[in-house]
Amino acid sequence: MVKFFDTICAPASSVGTGAISIVRVCGPECFAIMDRLVQCRNGKISEAKGYTMKRGQFSDVDDVVVAVFRNPSSYTGEDAVEIYCHASTYIVGRILELLVANGCRLAEAGEFTKRAYLNGKMDLAQAEAVADVITASSEAQHKVAMNQLRGGYSAELRSIREEMLHLAAMMELELDFSEEDVEFADRSQLLGLVDKAISRCETLSDSFRLGNAIKNGVPVAIVGAPNSGKSTLLNALLQDERAIVSDIPGTTRDTIEECCVISGVLFRFIDTAGIRNASDEIERLGIERTFAKMRQAEVVLGVVDCSSDSAIDDAKMIFEKASSETRKLVLLCNKIDVVEAELLVNKNVNTINKLVSSADYKDINIVTLKISAKQDLGLEELRNELGNSCKISSASDNLVTNARHAQALKSAAASLREVKNGLSLMIPTDLVAEDLRAALNTLGSITGEISTDEVLGEIFGKFCIGK
Amino acid sequence: MVKFFDTICAPASSVGTGAISIVRVCGPECFAIMDRLVQCRNGKISEAKGYTMKRGQFSDVDDVVVAVFRNPSSYTGEDAVEIYCHASTYIVGRILELLVANGCRLAEAGEFTKRAYLNGKMDLAQAEAVADVITASSEAQHKVAMNQLRGGYSAELRSIREEMLHLAAMMELELDFSEEDVEFADRSQLLGLVDKAISRCETLSDSFRLGNAIKNGVPVAIVGAPNSGKSTLLNALLQDERAIVSDIPGTTRDTIEECCVISGVLFRFIDTAGIRNASDEIERLGIERTFAKMRQAEVVLGVVDCSSDSAIDDAKMIFEKASSETRKLVLLCNKIDVVEAELLVNKNVNTINKLVSSADYKDINIVTLKISAKQDLGLEELRNELGNSCKISSASDNLVTNARHAQALKSAAASLREVKNGLSLMIPTDLVAEDLRAALNTLGSITGEISTDEVLGEIFGKFCIGK
Repeated sequence: MVKFFDTICAPASSVGTGAISIVRVCGPECFAIMDRLVQCRNGKISEAKGYTMKRGQFSDVDDVVVAVFRNPSSYTGEDAVEIYCHASTYIVGRILELLVANGCRLAEAGEFTKRAYLNGKMDLAQAEAVADVITASSEAQHKVAMNQLRGGYSAELRSIREEMLHLAAMMELELDFSEEDVEFADRSQLLGLVDKAISRCETLSDSFRLGNAIKNGVPVAIVGAPNSGKSTLLNALLQDERAIVSDIPGTTRDTIEECCVISGVLFRFIDTAGIRNASDEIERLGIERTFAKMRQAEVVLGVVDCSSDSAIDDAKMIFEKASSETRKLVLLCNKIDVVEAELLVNKNVNTINKLVSSADYKDINIVTLKISAKQDLGLEELRNELGNSCKISSASDNLVTNARHAQALKSAAASLREVKNGLSLMIPTDLVAEDLRAALNTLGSITGEISTDEVLGEIFGKFCIGK
Repeated sequence: MVKFFDTICAPASSVGTGAISIVRVCGPECFAIMDRLVQCRNGKISEAKGYTMKRGQFSDVDDVVVAVFRNPSSYTGEDAVEIYCHASTYIVGRILELLVANGCRLAEAGEFTKRAYLNGKMDLAQAEAVADVITASSEAQHKVAMNQLRGGYSAELRSIREEMLHLAAMMELELDFSEEDVEFADRSQLLGLVDKAISRCETLSDSFRLGNAIKNGVPVAIVGAPNSGKSTLLNALLQDERAIVSDIPGTTRDTIEECCVISGVLFRFIDTAGIRNASDEIERLGIERTFAKMRQAEVVLGVVDCSSDSAIDDAKMIFEKASSETRKLVLLCNKIDVVEAELLVNKNVNTINKLVSSADYKDINIVTLKISAKQDLGLEELRNELGNSCKISSASDNLVTNARHAQALKSAAASLREVKNGLSLMIPTDLVAEDLRAALNTLGSITGEISTDEVLGEIFGKFCIGK
């Protein structure tokens, strides 16, 4: 265990209206300081057992309950206490003042978790997951972060790393004997191991796309001709979730983003400018932006006004813009409630369905749904479709949600491909070993087996104070 | 102890950025529900001792620490747990959902404290103090609320009530024997007791003025001729405290209120429209409002531009408006830094000092100070003057901060005066006893010895959820 010389303190619950606030203290002087500051009726805090609590008077400030945690069974692994006081900004402020006056130092952002990591209570990937667990606002975000916090993801990384260490050991064996007159290790067996490691790294780094979408909200672009009903659809989708809607005024004019949770997944809906064949230069620029949003989206909702004469042209325009880059296009035949256009609607829907199954658009992953955004028809089916498109199959699914990790995994895979090349080209093992070492180091940086102060500073600086 | 049949739960820490959140559960099924929901490695929560904690997995939601409190040693006096989880809105929401699904009911606002009161863990005045302790933002507010929470104020009330009960006993003695041929109890002794009780009730109810000022911010009106430097003074007083400044746009045009803490007391500074002999009807109305603010203020800061020829007239205008209703007037001879008017400044300051000590204004409590709001001269002295004017001499000072209590104390004093009248007029004891009983009931309503559901509903409805 790392020996820390200073005792740190910080508020651990958020400041605001509430009943109870928490102040956290940990470090070598923790119990001595508490004995000076807290008067308990039944014995000293320094004499309390771990995982017990004492009621007492914190100086003249407040009546508090103090929870005692003893090294190594605490969050950071050190001696620690948590002070539960009345939730008042004044009280929390005074308690921190008195702690500092008695030898504590105010903790930096993330310092408790950093100590937990440095003391081996958790690895770096788990420590990073703490921040994700706290900010998770949907079931899916929470599931992914919790899996990472509980070490599921670290276990997968460790297993890849062990396989690579096995590979390294085999290569070293070859190296040891290369000067002598023994046979080279069977390179085809080595190649098999490398291929497997590459594939496992790539599977993880590829999961970043979905992981990131789940963490930050799955982007769904709503596109279509002007007046096809895009905004009505957006409002209809959001109505039950108004409470957690947030307006993010886009940089692009007329592009509005709003979030809501569907089937436990946070979706980020992007309402775009209506697309049409515009002659106006400025409007064309706006429409170009819509196409960019389509390319970035995980799902594109193409809205067509099926009660309109231009429905087929509008649908074709969407299909043409939905290139192979579109992962999923849900074509919504909207306004099926317009009774006076019933025949036209039916004809249009049939034609669109034929178009979808035609050879022209076989490269695009299209689903069609009949809806009326105005009358709330078919929206449940749409929600199911969206939910299914981002399902996490189980809690044990390891999704990468952290750009640092994705980058490391990509880089490890690249180094491993160098190893593979080297082995195939019969390059001497000691040269190949360099690339393998690079891959091992890169992977180790994810869980923090290999780390630098700079990386640690960047990771824990993003935490809130008190964590 | 009152037997409650349902188990209640609520978040007890505020929702927002933080490391740890708290969920509180109390009631008869509390431990059974926790056993169903939390998997601990070392034994069941229902088997844990009071004031100990267990680490566990709360369903599939989070890794938590659970604190166990056993009847009667808990906040409400019932079996209770506090769940410490990661501070995420999602997690707290899921935990509450699962608690409710397993038989808990979401607590109403203040329900924990209401149960604590109904179980005799605290009286009503202490329960009300809980809310004040939480909202206190200055040392003085906190001191007063803490004294009330720790029962100091209740003890004073109890002592008054005991004296009154003693009085009642003596009157009853007279009543018992009144039919017989014994001497009447010595009414002068009774009168002495009544006088003492009246005086104690009035001392407390009079303290409401200061108590309320401390709780809501001591009102300080800044008045003076236009351009005497009132706004510069306000900014100078606030500058160190910008962080906790709050803009309360007044109902009166040009009246701005801003708060800051000086010497541990929250002051509410009211910048008013400049006063002068205005002919314009609308301006006169505005100036009338300034006078109203002066009457409501605890302290009036009269600002005079001493570098101006009209300084003496301006000062006189302030003196004239500062009637006997002004509790304290601090006359600030401002702009003493204007070097080019040094002679005029000195002359004006001298004349003002003579005015202050003249017989004309002997009824007003005036202090004069020389300042330069612009150059920050003399402001430390002003701050000291303000701090001293609202000093609470010690933590044991019983200040009434609650309008309900002040009203009850006034009403008790009124009933006691009726008792006094009755005794003086030799009205039969049984009629006088009615008034005494009324006074006892009114006093009892403060600590809740006498209470109705309606009163309780009103008091605890103002609490936050989870307290």
